[in-house]
Amino acid sequence: MPSIFTKIINREVSGHIVAEDDDFIAFLDIQPLVHGHVLVVPKKEVDYIFDLGDELYTGLFKFAKRVAKAIGEKIECKRVGVAVIGLEVPHVHIHLVPLNTMSDINFSKPKLEPSQEELKKVADKIKAVL
Amino acid sequence: MPSIFTKIINREVSGHIVAEDDDFIAFLDIQPLVHGHVLVVPKKEVDYIFDLGDELYTGLFKFAKRVAKAIGEKIECKRVGVAVIGLEVPHVHIHLVPLNTMSDINFSKPKLEPSQEELKKVADKIKAVL
Repeated sequence: MPSIFTKIINREVSGHIVAEDDDFIAFLDIQPLVHGHVLVVPKKEVDYIFDLGDELYTGLFKFAKRVAKAIGEKIECKRVGVAVIGLEVPHVHIHLVPLNTMSDINFSKPKLEPSQEELKKVADKIKAVL
Repeated sequence: MPSIFTKIINREVSGHIVAEDDDFIAFLDIQPLVHGHVLVVPKKEVDYIFDLGDELYTGLFKFAKRVAKAIGEKIECKRVGVAVIGLEVPHVHIHLVPLNTMSDINFSKPKLEPSQEELKKVADKIKAVL
């Protein structure tokens, strides 16, 4: 059974994609902690980030750096935070979260529920510099 | 004014170091979210992770992978989570946090206050496989 992220990669499920290459993809989290919260995902479906081979692992973080710089440029924040939890979807994903306070990166708090239109607006802003 | 992490690197402040090479160091967070919470730090004092040059940036994450595997081997957890916040100490640091639930990585909750003896015990366990 492919993960929800593989379905987004294969365009079976729509996602607000901001960047993509042969190995990696980045799209908006549809239940963001804050506006501009992006997930960075390797196309290869691996569950645990530290099980990725070195090349894919460092490639993923390099790809994430490029995306984080675009987020920082377009979303009002002090800096872009990074989190990898991985207890929910069993397909590696790096959270990139625009931060203004420490509590912006608390995964226990209620998520935002932006409309498709709001998500599209945020994705378009970030995509414009990628 | 050197950061607290630079003081640990220079042995001006004692730290429970678990791994070190020419460019990077890893030591226990003295106010851990959970036991086995480690900070991975580049010796070069840079404030923001996405300002690190590509070589140091990917080197840091490769070093963190090695440390994370050791934590996962020695500390009871489902997996090792990753977080980079950076709103406090202005010297890049990756948090490696042994996770059993999503809320283990909530930086807003009260931190643990282990004794030096407890910290030493945890550091020794992790160091043994590094």
